[in-house]
Amino acid sequence: MFKRILYPTDFSDVSKKALDYIKQLKEGGAKEVIVLHVIDEREIESIHRASAYVSYEKEVEKIIKENAEEQTGLIEAELKKSGFDVKIRIEKGIPFRDILRVEKEEAVSVIVVGSHGKSNIEEMFLGSVSEKVIRKCKRPVLVIKR
Amino acid sequence: MFKRILYPTDFSDVSKKALDYIKQLKEGGAKEVIVLHVIDEREIESIHRASAYVSYEKEVEKIIKENAEEQTGLIEAELKKSGFDVKIRIEKGIPFRDILRVEKEEAVSVIVVGSHGKSNIEEMFLGSVSEKVIRKCKRPVLVIKR
Repeated sequence: MFKRILYPTDFSDVSKKALDYIKQLKEGGAKEVIVLHVIDEREIESIHRASAYVSYEKEVEKIIKENAEEQTGLIEAELKKSGFDVKIRIEKGIPFRDILRVEKEEAVSVIVVGSHGKSNIEEMFLGSVSEKVIRKCKRPVLVIKR
Repeated sequence: MFKRILYPTDFSDVSKKALDYIKQLKEGGAKEVIVLHVIDEREIESIHRASAYVSYEKEVEKIIKENAEEQTGLIEAELKKSGFDVKIRIEKGIPFRDILRVEKEEAVSVIVVGSHGKSNIEEMFLGSVSEKVIRKCKRPVLVIKR
């Protein structure tokens, strides 16, 4: 029922908090965690538009990707230490869409998300990516609040 | 982390499905379930407005309450069989408000809700009570989809 967890993360504080809950689900039968980070292609595009030098654009995209690899690597190590099988997926796209796509592709049992992403706006009760995922996903979703 | 579960239910199919997930959380450290049913005072009022006889109004409210007691009784028996401590609360009020009030009063660890209530409208991705609870609750919330 909680066997295969999809854990989409943008490396925000709330999504880090979600990791502790994932570990607790181990006792509830969780075996594998798909750690998913979606690099927002719209952010990359806006960097492209803002940058005057082609070489600079590519450099930024490379740095973003390397950072994602480093951060997911740390999560992988932490989850493996807790006895999970771990699969890392770094995608480039529109976060909520790719989360829903990977939900299907990986046939997950449950999704664990933070209520807010990096743009943690005080007035908002729910981040926009989380909201769309909660609305449209097919599997149960555990929402960790900030 | 999942020790004390708040389970708000309107006895809909989706909220019954949520029971299976609660049972699974037993292995994840869950000990007690607060089963909460809120009788919507607005429904009672509309019955009052529609009814011509005072005696009839009271009868309807009594039937609704007895039905809630019977249904929560069945849930209690099922959860006790799975080894949970169970507390039943039947409240009269506005569902989402009372769910949030009980969340605080009972200092729960997690809320488990169905994505839709009895008015399970095909086009809606999320029922209005569930949506308000997900937005405003303080604790993590596990949303079971229809």
